[in-house]
Amino acid sequence: MTAGALGRRGRRMIVALAALGTLASPAAAATRNVWVAAVPVQWDVVPSGTDPMTGTTYPKSQTAGWTVVYRLYDRGWRHPRAGAAIPGPLIRARVGDRILVHFKNLDTHFRNAHSMHFHGVHYAFASDGSYIPGISGPGADVRPGQAFTYRLLAGRDSAGAWPYHDHGPAMDESIAGGMYGMLSILRRKERAPDREFVVALSSMRGFMTINGRAFLGNTPVFRSRVGDRVRWDVMAMGDDFHTFHVHGHRWLRDGVPEDVRSVGPAESFTVSWRERSPGAWYYHCHVESHMMAGMIGLYVVRR
Amino acid sequence: MTAGALGRRGRRMIVALAALGTLASPAAAATRNVWVAAVPVQWDVVPSGTDPMTGTTYPKSQTAGWTVVYRLYDRGWRHPRAGAAIPGPLIRARVGDRILVHFKNLDTHFRNAHSMHFHGVHYAFASDGSYIPGISGPGADVRPGQAFTYRLLAGRDSAGAWPYHDHGPAMDESIAGGMYGMLSILRRKERAPDREFVVALSSMRGFMTINGRAFLGNTPVFRSRVGDRVRWDVMAMGDDFHTFHVHGHRWLRDGVPEDVRSVGPAESFTVSWRERSPGAWYYHCHVESHMMAGMIGLYVVRR
Amino acid sequence: MTAGALGRRGRRMIVALAALGTLASPAAAATRNVWVAAVPVQWDVVPSGTDPMTGTTYPKSQTAGWTVVYRLYDRGWRHPRAGAAIPGPLIRARVGDRILVHFKNLDTHFRNAHSMHFHGVHYAFASDGSYIPGISGPGADVRPGQAFTYRLLAGRDSAGAWPYHDHGPAMDESIAGGMYGMLSILRRKERAPDREFVVALSSMRGFMTINGRAFLGNTPVFRSRVGDRVRWDVMAMGDDFHTFHVHGHRWLRDGVPEDVRSVGPAESFTVSWRERSPGAWYYHCHVESHMMAGMIGLYVVRR
Repeated sequence: MTAGALGRRGRRMIVALAALGTLASPAAAATRNVWVAAVPVQWDVVPSGTDPMTGTTYPKSQTAGWTVVYRLYDRGWRHPRAGAAIPGPLIRARVGDRILVHFKNLDTHFRNAHSMHFHGVHYAFASDGSYIPGISGPGADVRPGQAFTYRLLAGRDSAGAWPYHDHGPAMDESIAGGMYGMLSILRRKERAPDREFVVALSSMRGFMTINGRAFLGNTPVFRSRVGDRVRWDVMAMGDDFHTFHVHGHRWLRDGVPEDVRSVGPAESFTVSWRERSPGAWYYHCHVESHMMAGMIGLYVVRR
Repeated sequence: MTAGALGRRGRRMIVALAALGTLASPAAAATRNVWVAAVPVQWDVVPSGTDPMTGTTYPKSQTAGWTVVYRLYDRGWRHPRAGAAIPGPLIRARVGDRILVHFKNLDTHFRNAHSMHFHGVHYAFASDGSYIPGISGPGADVRPGQAFTYRLLAGRDSAGAWPYHDHGPAMDESIAGGMYGMLSILRRKERAPDREFVVALSSMRGFMTINGRAFLGNTPVFRSRVGDRVRWDVMAMGDDFHTFHVHGHRWLRDGVPEDVRSVGPAESFTVSWRERSPGAWYYHCHVESHMMAGMIGLYVVRR
Repeated sequence: MTAGALGRRGRRMIVALAALGTLASPAAAATRNVWVAAVPVQWDVVPSGTDPMTGTTYPKSQTAGWTVVYRLYDRGWRHPRAGAAIPGPLIRARVGDRILVHFKNLDTHFRNAHSMHFHGVHYAFASDGSYIPGISGPGADVRPGQAFTYRLLAGRDSAGAWPYHDHGPAMDESIAGGMYGMLSILRRKERAPDREFVVALSSMRGFMTINGRAFLGNTPVFRSRVGDRVRWDVMAMGDDFHTFHVHGHRWLRDGVPEDVRSVGPAESFTVSWRERSPGAWYYHCHVESHMMAGMIGLYVVRR
């Protein structure tokens, strides 16, 4: 499938929008095309080789190796537009948009079939991307060298941040290897935040990782300035439940303040605030053993 | 205790209703009598003997054996009105109703004492059904061959879906064996859904089960048609936290959309929607290891 | 630092309050001084030596030993004002108050550095109390014999109940040993409850404990009378997720009734009700294995 035949698909989409009933006005809708490939990469969970909190060092044989991740490409998967990293590319849209994710399996290393399964957005069964023996179609089982386009719609009930991940036959292995990413969907007229931080919590190679990395010096350092409107997009993937905590800040959940929030596998949420608190603040999972296994980073706010 | 002396109990109930203050008008209240027995049954967690996702097969010695479950009976426990299954019977009521659950312990196999403990509803201490050494009464420790009637009230704060389960001296063993079920309580004038799906998540014999069954082909296939108002009653029991996910659908929680929701032991919730999305959708626990251990099923929506 | 120089600090505070923007009128604010020390204590998780539910007995070698806890003192740490216990002292305040927590490390047994890190309240980076190698200051790494004053503000988004805990270099060990407590912050004009129950859920020495104690006969017995307005301040600390349940009661969460609520490490919440239900009610973690490992207590309501 190519991205060319917009006229026919556009007409079909208007019918779909009317049928769904929960989407913003189709007149305002944009179509966003995203090219993504599954690519093999050598990934190191602890590039520094050490945990500065305890001084423990880890050999590369334990922290690094081949895995498969989602990587952003130019149209037609000609050139990569970003590094091959964990999590995969942040896919942005607004309520009312349709999103065409053109996925190609370039896994020449393990040669597993892969797919993309998206949370939070609307789609027909053919774009579900989940392997069901005897039932699912080609989008659920994309073989090496093959491609598939997932047709998604951002409905009014799609605003927020959501995971996507492999749901093909090898998903158990590939999710543990980092085949996940996030969708970030703004409301139709919502002002974009000044800073948006993606926090994907998962285990990998026995470590507890944030965006595929463990321990201070490896996990992301998020940065903002006083006055910035910041937003955190938080998800978990895998087997574990986490409690996300940012030091020196609080936020409201349904009107009730909190500064810790639990997030289980495939759950996701956003929290936002206007920054007022300069400092070098920890953000971390508050499960003590997860924090000790690397799930901690720094959020630096300058005046 | 019999179900005959309604006059005296009715007067007592009006006093109780006035005292509670949170119940719907007693004038509208019905009394629902339910006969339930604890019965031994041979239960197979994997009747098909195989996981079609991986092709793994399991011997009957691993998947099947004797257990005790709650079974629905006719008045006076004369004849069973339904099969002996996991979970136990769905007990339905409306806000304002009183519910008399007449329980008999027919466990002739293990000969353990059992009880029923109900979440979400109002009751006096005598109907708590929880064994407390030196304190609790006969309803907490019903011996084989004995019976007890639990007197429950559905208050305004009882609307929703709730677990019930054994809370007798052997509860640790009997909950692992499937002695749990659900209450479904509608508001006074709430329209009943077209389809109501009960999803009880628990571990059993080392498998992760939905309604006592593991793997596609064994777990429930829920069915609806486009246009149906569907409702899911979800609970967990045992030691594990789960993340309930339905493919291709979203729902609002306090106005915030989600398609995954965590549920820990004895937590429960309902989610509802008007069906619009035909397909063969997975529903599953999104904890990867739980899904791989069987906690996955199909939800089939026809046009 | 002493508590004397209120004038200068008072002026600084008014500036800070104006800058924060989310605090109640500074005119109404009080300053609360609290003296706390980290002290070694011999602590027994199972003083009775037995679990009355199963009859299992436990030797003192398994249940008791030295640990370090937070203890409340008179001004200047001259005399203890309360026993050395788990959790540490409940620190009470109202929205708009500033709270000066004067902490001294009197750990003469293990001689570890310790700190206090507070959830829910406002503070500058210097009062964060979290050890960050190469970044944090003296409040994050208070050596034996040393002291530090944490300067906190109760903002409008601080109402509720929150954990505090050690976040020094030895936090992993000291949190497992009981170095945690709670803040209870009322809104500016909120009426205080008649009864306030602190429930800190954590594991210790292989047991699942409530306030550092395991099994009926050791865990707290909370008491109220019909008509009392009761409030439960619930937190978890450590590695485990729990589901807090009180028998015979329900409460609303965002308008939805529940009688079980999950709480992960460093999460906290309050639930409140006007008492109407006399009885000897279990409260417990509903994770079955946690309840069997001691995480269960009694709540006795008299007419």
